[in-house]
Parts: sequence; C-alpha cells; structure tokens
Amino acid sequence: MKIIKIEKKILSENQKCSIENKSLLAERKKLCLNMISSPGSGKTTILVRTINELKDRIKIGVIEGDVQTDIDAERIRTTEAPVVLINTEGACHLSAVQIKKALKKLPIDDLDIVLIENVGNLVCPSAFELGEAGKIVVLSVAEGDDKPAKYPAIFAKSKALLINKTDLLGHVDFDMERAKADARRLNKTIEIFPVSAKTGEGLADWYDWLRKTLEQTKTRP
Amino acid sequence: MKIIKIEKKILSENQKCSIENKSLLAERKKLCLNMISSPGSGKTTILVRTINELKDRIKIGVIEGDVQTDIDAERIRTTEAPVVLINTEGACHLSAVQIKKALKKLPIDDLDIVLIENVGNLVCPSAFELGEAGKIVVLSVAEGDDKPAKYPAIFAKSKALLINKTDLLGHVDFDMERAKADARRLNKTIEIFPVSAKTGEGLADWYDWLRKTLEQTKTRP
Repeated sequence: MKIIKIEKKILSENQKCSIENKSLLAERKKLCLNMISSPGSGKTTILVRTINELKDRIKIGVIEGDVQTDIDAERIRTTEAPVVLINTEGACHLSAVQIKKALKKLPIDDLDIVLIENVGNLVCPSAFELGEAGKIVVLSVAEGDDKPAKYPAIFAKSKALLINKTDLLGHVDFDMERAKADARRLNKTIEIFPVSAKTGEGLADWYDWLRKTLEQTKTRP
Repeated sequence: MKIIKIEKKILSENQKCSIENKSLLAERKKLCLNMISSPGSGKTTILVRTINELKDRIKIGVIEGDVQTDIDAERIRTTEAPVVLINTEGACHLSAVQIKKALKKLPIDDLDIVLIENVGNLVCPSAFELGEAGKIVVLSVAEGDDKPAKYPAIFAKSKALLINKTDLLGHVDFDMERAKADARRLNKTIEIFPVSAKTGEGLADWYDWLRKTLEQTKTRP
C-alpha cells in the first residue's frame, strides 16, 4: 500500500511540472509533441527527414531522450536544428522535470515546434505527461500488426500514429488493416499515417498534419 | 532521497523472491531462462519454433508475460507446451513474485526447461531478477545495429543474444559486425546467434547451446 501512495506522489509531482511546461509552451504558441515508440521503430530517421524537408518554412527544435549515448542527438545535429540531449542513465522514460530544464536550453522563441524523442519504450513513457500538446506513437511494420492490441495505453493516448518502414511490407507479415482497426478501436480520433522514412513514401500527409496542427496552435486565442 | 530508499526496498523484496525461485529450480535441476527484447523482435516466434523442433527430446514450459491480451499465450498453446499467462495490466516488466506464482501452476516435474517471455521492453525487465539461470536478449535486425550501444544494460547481463530476422538483412541497414562488436564490448562471454525464426536459418546453433546448457544444469552436483 505504501508503494502505491508514493507512486501517486511521484506522478503528481511530474503532473505539476508538466502543467508548467504546457503553460510556458502555450503562452508562446509553440507546438510541442512527444514521440514514443519501441526501440528501432525509426523515430530519429523520421525526425531527421521531417526537419530537413520542412526547414525552409518551419523551425523545429528537438529534445532527445536516450538511456545512454549521444548517437541519436548527433544524427539530429546533422540537420543543424537545435537539440538538447537528455541521457536518462538507465531510466525508462523522460520526466517533465527533465523537459523543463531542456526547454530552458532551447532557443524557444526562434522555434515553431518542439519535438521530444522519448526513450525507446512502448510501455513506460505513455504514463508520464511532459507538457506536450500531444503524443505521437511510431510503430514499425517489422514489429507486427498486433502491437496496438498488445500495448494499448500509448495507442489510446496518442493524437497520431505513424506506421513506419512501409518499404518492408513485402517482406514481413503485417496486416495494415488489422493494425489500423485495432488502433481506432482504442482511439476513435487517432490520425494514422503509413510512412517510410527511408523512401519518403507517405510523409507528405504527416507534414500536412504537422502544418495544420501548428497553424491551430498559432491561431488559438 | 526518500524515493531512492524505497526503490531499494522494492528491489530487495524482488531479489529475495528471485532467490527462492532460483533455489526451487536448481533443486529440481530445471533450466530457467528469461527472454527479454523490444516489442516485435520475434520472441514468441522463436519460442514456438524452438518448442516444436525440440519437443521429442526436451520438454519446455513457458511463462508468458504481456501487458495486455493473451495473443502470445495462444500462439504458444498451439505447440501443446504448458503455458502460464501473466497479464501485467500496464506494468512494464515481470516480477519474481509473479514468477513464483506461475511456477506453482506449471507441471514443473515434467519439464526440462522453463522459458519466461518477459514484457516487450528493452529497458525495465533487465533490472528485475526473476530467479532465472540466465537472460536471453533478442534483437531484430529491423531495430538497427546501434541497439547494444544504446540500451547496454540488457546486453551486459545476458548469457546469449539472438539477432533475429536475418531474412530481412538485404532490406534493412544493419551492420552485423558492429552489433556483435558492441555487444561483446559490453559482455565478453555473451554467445551470439544470428537467426531467422521465419526461415529457420541459424536456429541449429541456438538449439545446440540450449541442449548444452540444459546438460550442464542436469549434471551440476
């Protein structure tokens, strides 16, 4: 019983800080999205391509969460976008306190969008609000079409689902309609984008959604 | 500071129970392995194939951990191997207490090997001993060759690494030598088996290792 009480306390500390982050971003009319997936679904490749292909019109900054190493942060740096790395030193998710500190290091007034790349983990990060306007879940077709059913929390909570690595569709057993139907059963309003960050297929729809969502953020009273 | 103390307490409760499980299994000379990976690396497919291809000589029972659903347990049941399902209801790893209860439900005296399929998560399960004789980490080539470096804990702690989905090697960017070298940098004695649970490629070496490890378990004084 004691354990449950304390867990609640940690969550509400995180919650308090996430509300502060959300207010800071909303006041400045910045769009902040929290990208969550299993390891190796292709979050960083999607980010690099998105930043490069939108950089003339939209300024994106990145908060990069990793258990160890700066491999992903270095990949983001090739785009010249501002990036702040958070090494969690073994911890399985980012916290709102870490995001609060990272936001202070980003040139926030020069940015339109802050994209947070969470630790590769389809379970834990879904339970921790960071102050984002929405979560984006990425699923690679190589992971299998049963993942929305098996890991429902993140699919239920996300604004958009990117089904990545569609270039592998001929080589893996993945029923796109099953994955979509299971995700929509959990979340009626989820936007679903089948994409290949490798070939670029499908990314135009994701970019349109990003632009539209940014526009709504900027014009909100 | 309080949080750290309590975390230690939880871990040592788990530790105590894991030692009990380990003793129970060692007394009966049963080999118990804890399989850990990201979601969708192919643990269940490996298990199904391993059980079916060894069933004339080795009796395997399975403890199946899942956040939700009985999808994987149903797949294991097609092999007619005994299986106990643990639904963690959102929790990100199996605990030794859950394994203790599950072991009571398995016909342990009829089995040679107990294979635990942990929750799909490359981070959290590595921190919780369940009473196993060793951990097996599974990595799919679709996840990328940088995963041992990025998620070092589980690679450092495992007895064996199965690099699965080698049938996709022509279609994904995966440097086998880099993945192997990074895993061996973390763990000098790790056994590495590149396999395809789909085509069967490489599985003979994994079966040999299982047989050899089982033999050592049975002949230990």
